[in-house]
Amino acid sequence: MVRWEPDSRGRLEEAALALYGERGFDNTTVAEIAARAGLTERTFFRHFADKREVLFWGAGRLQALLVDAVAGAPASASPLDAVAAAIEAAGAFLQDRRDYSRQRQAIIAASPELRERELIKLASLASALADTLRQRGVEEPAASLTAEVAIAVFKIAFARWVEETNKKDLPHVMRDSLDELKAVTGLSR
Amino acid sequence: MVRWEPDSRGRLEEAALALYGERGFDNTTVAEIAARAGLTERTFFRHFADKREVLFWGAGRLQALLVDAVAGAPASASPLDAVAAAIEAAGAFLQDRRDYSRQRQAIIAASPELRERELIKLASLASALADTLRQRGVEEPAASLTAEVAIAVFKIAFARWVEETNKKDLPHVMRDSLDELKAVTGLSR
Repeated sequence: MVRWEPDSRGRLEEAALALYGERGFDNTTVAEIAARAGLTERTFFRHFADKREVLFWGAGRLQALLVDAVAGAPASASPLDAVAAAIEAAGAFLQDRRDYSRQRQAIIAASPELRERELIKLASLASALADTLRQRGVEEPAASLTAEVAIAVFKIAFARWVEETNKKDLPHVMRDSLDELKAVTGLSR
Repeated sequence: MVRWEPDSRGRLEEAALALYGERGFDNTTVAEIAARAGLTERTFFRHFADKREVLFWGAGRLQALLVDAVAGAPASASPLDAVAAAIEAAGAFLQDRRDYSRQRQAIIAASPELRERELIKLASLASALADTLRQRGVEEPAASLTAEVAIAVFKIAFARWVEETNKKDLPHVMRDSLDELKAVTGLSR
């Protein structure tokens, strides 16, 4: 019989992030996470495949959000406007998770393995965006370029928002970074 | 006494690429590479740390080339013009290695481990370019955005050049992709 634990997933996530922050990701075991959360290892593995998944399970949701926003942009929207809407939507979603995001970013920055995993996640997001743009009729290389640029803006804006002490919200930082990108690509021969 | 083998490094590289292409990277051993090249494993390890390094030793050279081109751009050049000059220089360098590049790209595409390593390599190149732009006085986030955009253009142009049967040279494809990027970022609200 499996005893039902209220919000065991949330408690495990919170315990894992606290431990990764204190001891480092590599030095934390699933047994320690479960003990900190007052749960069993068995319960941990009902929610997460491994200790890395605690930090990456949200990637699928983020990808769905980005893809839906691009697919749902008006037919008249330019490729860049479609991805701009998508990263602003992702910004609004992450805005409510600022403490979690800051904690997670510090843990990832401290581990080469996690930094690699994060790069792979971002590359998958770019790939999914490029696919969605092609489905909107955008040709290559414009689809891939727009998708890569969007993920670069997303990554850089996210890092700024997490690090900075200013009070700008993330969708706002996303827009600023995109404007900066336009300025940068416009300022040339 | 170490017997001197003329161009043993080149022979090992050629043997490794042939075997990775025939059997896949995972299914090839250093012993097999050495045997195919008519050399010993000991000789292999004098030239390469492991079988992955055969595919990635050029990354340092590519990075030096990109960084030198950005650092050496006229003071009056915009950040985008500086990185444009850098990726065209990298294009000219890789242009002479088309068969090798095509072979290498197919091997990397077939292996998740190698695709990850390639992503990490590209992220390091972007990081090095951003550092160099900051040394030129470019502020953030413009430095990081320009660097990420340059590497995105480099990656997409390289993939097109390797895949396409057209006869355009790589520096030309780099310029076209950059122009396409400017069109994409210009076509918006």
